[in-house]
Amino acid sequence: MKIKEFLNNNKNKDVVVIQGLGFVGAVMSLVVSNSSKKNYAVIGVDRKESNEIITNINNGTFPIKSSDPKIEQYYQNSIKKGNLLATYNHLAYSYASVIIVDINLDVQKKSDSNGNLNSFNVDLNPFKKAIKTIGQNCKEDVLILVETTVPPGTCLKVVKPIIEAELLKRNLSVEKVKIGHSYERVMPGPEYINSIKNFYRVYSGIDENSAVETELFLKTIISTKDYPLTRLINTNATEMAKVLENSYRAMNIAFAVEWSRYAEEAGVNLYEIVNAIRMRPTHSNLMYPGIGVGGYCLTKDPLLASWAKTNHFNSDHCLEQSEKGVQINDKMPHFAFDYMKRAFSFKTLKYKKILLLGISYRSDVGDTRYSPVEPFYLNCINDKANVVTHDPYVKYWNELNLKVSQNLDEELKNDWDIIVFSTAHTEYKNPKVISIISKMSKICIYDTLGILKEKDIIELNINNKVKVLGRGDI
Amino acid sequence: MKIKEFLNNNKNKDVVVIQGLGFVGAVMSLVVSNSSKKNYAVIGVDRKESNEIITNINNGTFPIKSSDPKIEQYYQNSIKKGNLLATYNHLAYSYASVIIVDINLDVQKKSDSNGNLNSFNVDLNPFKKAIKTIGQNCKEDVLILVETTVPPGTCLKVVKPIIEAELLKRNLSVEKVKIGHSYERVMPGPEYINSIKNFYRVYSGIDENSAVETELFLKTIISTKDYPLTRLINTNATEMAKVLENSYRAMNIAFAVEWSRYAEEAGVNLYEIVNAIRMRPTHSNLMYPGIGVGGYCLTKDPLLASWAKTNHFNSDHCLEQSEKGVQINDKMPHFAFDYMKRAFSFKTLKYKKILLLGISYRSDVGDTRYSPVEPFYLNCINDKANVVTHDPYVKYWNELNLKVSQNLDEELKNDWDIIVFSTAHTEYKNPKVISIISKMSKICIYDTLGILKEKDIIELNINNKVKVLGRGDI
Repeated sequence: MKIKEFLNNNKNKDVVVIQGLGFVGAVMSLVVSNSSKKNYAVIGVDRKESNEIITNINNGTFPIKSSDPKIEQYYQNSIKKGNLLATYNHLAYSYASVIIVDINLDVQKKSDSNGNLNSFNVDLNPFKKAIKTIGQNCKEDVLILVETTVPPGTCLKVVKPIIEAELLKRNLSVEKVKIGHSYERVMPGPEYINSIKNFYRVYSGIDENSAVETELFLKTIISTKDYPLTRLINTNATEMAKVLENSYRAMNIAFAVEWSRYAEEAGVNLYEIVNAIRMRPTHSNLMYPGIGVGGYCLTKDPLLASWAKTNHFNSDHCLEQSEKGVQINDKMPHFAFDYMKRAFSFKTLKYKKILLLGISYRSDVGDTRYSPVEPFYLNCINDKANVVTHDPYVKYWNELNLKVSQNLDEELKNDWDIIVFSTAHTEYKNPKVISIISKMSKICIYDTLGILKEKDIIELNINNKVKVLGRGDI
Repeated sequence: MKIKEFLNNNKNKDVVVIQGLGFVGAVMSLVVSNSSKKNYAVIGVDRKESNEIITNINNGTFPIKSSDPKIEQYYQNSIKKGNLLATYNHLAYSYASVIIVDINLDVQKKSDSNGNLNSFNVDLNPFKKAIKTIGQNCKEDVLILVETTVPPGTCLKVVKPIIEAELLKRNLSVEKVKIGHSYERVMPGPEYINSIKNFYRVYSGIDENSAVETELFLKTIISTKDYPLTRLINTNATEMAKVLENSYRAMNIAFAVEWSRYAEEAGVNLYEIVNAIRMRPTHSNLMYPGIGVGGYCLTKDPLLASWAKTNHFNSDHCLEQSEKGVQINDKMPHFAFDYMKRAFSFKTLKYKKILLLGISYRSDVGDTRYSPVEPFYLNCINDKANVVTHDPYVKYWNELNLKVSQNLDEELKNDWDIIVFSTAHTEYKNPKVISIISKMSKICIYDTLGILKEKDIIELNINNKVKVLGRGDI
């Protein structure tokens, strides 16, 4: 369908364009097109290279597999209403009252083969280019709402000047444009939709009018009665809030990681200790260790903050705690690999048959970006193991150009030396799985995420060797 | 009163001896002697050098000033019951069914004048000596309950062998002695008593019998119905739990500290950002920055853990996140001092008249151990300022051999260049204080702890210069 035809079918509706149809933008397009408070016509824009996503959205297949049933419900409802279109045509911006920026902004990390972070850089050019296409096409009174996690200072120092320059080139006023920032707290998984629609939001604008318009828009898509909005004084503040809260989480995971090694040496169960300490209300969010930290946010956001300190605010203080968090977490999959060999007394994994259950970085979602299973897998391969991967949410591992098995029953019929629980998908917690594994002989089970319950471990230990990382008794 | 006379007055009561009458032991003696579940005769033992504390307890003056009214109530009740005695006589241990170890275990830090931690050491000798005095005197079936924060491994590797060696020297059995570990979570301040009596506890024993006896004893002094006990598998685990939870807190404060500098550079209010993020249940314990971290625990416990890694468990992994937390926090008072000069544009503080309101490390309690106000004060003095200190809870600053003013009204009549809120005592939050200060002319107010409310700051700014550190808008 052409844009004009789509708009013709959606007369009198405010047009919202979403730039970027990834894990945030695609689901954002569902939430906006399903607003119960206002009728929007929603156009998702992505690059030509993402033609598969665009075609899928327009032809009845939502591109993200998720355990949240609301995703499919919302998508079917959007199809029924006919108010959702995907395109790579930049002209879409010219019809928009609101443009939501949900594109990527990556950090380039240089690490050695053990996960030691040697250096990193932030290349703002792709982001700048995307903002420029908005400026080249948008109305002069559009509201541009940036949701991308950016280095603090970006809305004022990057977005605003680019948009204004492009408006001036088109002889348009720069007085009316509104730029807001409100970061998403999207959680892929069973609460995917709710993590946008029913959750707290922080927002700001580059000026009073921008903040007011941002608030008005957010109120039409978020349940702000139950989850009140918080306004911060400027975009620097909201941009910083986002990287700060993710840095906090990354650091707290790193904390669990370093103490898990300690627990191993002292012969105690960290899981038990963490549970005991969590009874203190002030310590209730203490984390468990695991195979590592993955995904698009926690692996880079503290570095975005550090980068901005130097590049946007000319400071030479560094964020030691936050950067250290990323560094420690990056090494975790390598530690998990070493621990596996040590725990099962394997000098080498040569010709060992290993089944990795789960490659996604997070349970019940198909997202392999910066998954900690990737370095873990590569370590196994470098050690000449024969590795098969399974994941109910991922058919093809893009980062490694690898086909991923979808048939758990079949895989469990094969003969394995080691089975690794590497993602905590619900499917793996099915008692049937434990039952099948418990009948295997001489197998090693490595649970990196606390999937096995105490009674499972007792049952499995009769016939198999079981080592648990995620439960903390390393 | 002699011990024998005391015991004669307290016939048929189990004797509990508390070793160490400091901020934990003294208050512990009140909680035990006020048990509603069992009648105990409580003897507090301290060193001859602490004769003042001993004399005070025996003569009607409790040695700790606190804002918790229960402290005085409990003390008066103990006097009435006649079941509390203090002594330096080690013979006390020979009568005890239970001996609670509440002595210090210090870390020796070597830091430069800017608070940079160059090295540290743990000297276990004073602790070992104290345990030895127990072993030389105790019954063979005593329960020794260690509450002191120790390097993980200490109960098994230090306490047990010393006690057993001393029992053997006296031809006593080593089979019957019980050694438990249950760390306190004492919070001096308005909830001092409750932080012992009505709070969660973790415990363990060196063997099954020790754990059981520890539990039975704790149940007689703690409201375990509302605050259930958690048993961990061994003393390594509980010892680690304690240093882990304090490391977590120290690290999270350090996190706030490093982001507070960032906020200053980006011109945003960190306090506002922290409040916005705290709405997320997973981030509700995010901390505010301040003048620094003090007190006996958070300044050293992560280092105890690091020390034990090398010395008790032969590991060369270090606890990077946790140590970094201590390092960053140690520098905070120096940063607060530099910020004060920068914010008020003072090149030097020479001859400036400065009033420091509060020297205790914590609000509403008189405890100057490792107070961050100490390096802050010394920086002022080194810069040749004339500094007067006030603290309602501290008459004499032992660490600096300094008299401390007790009369706030008088001090506020004097002529000051800078008034610093350095401890958040309730007395300083009295509207009268703000009213008096607002009438001063040309004064600089430096609030390191968020004592001033938004309306106070507006009011004060009319006549004075106000800079706020603790509220985050550095």
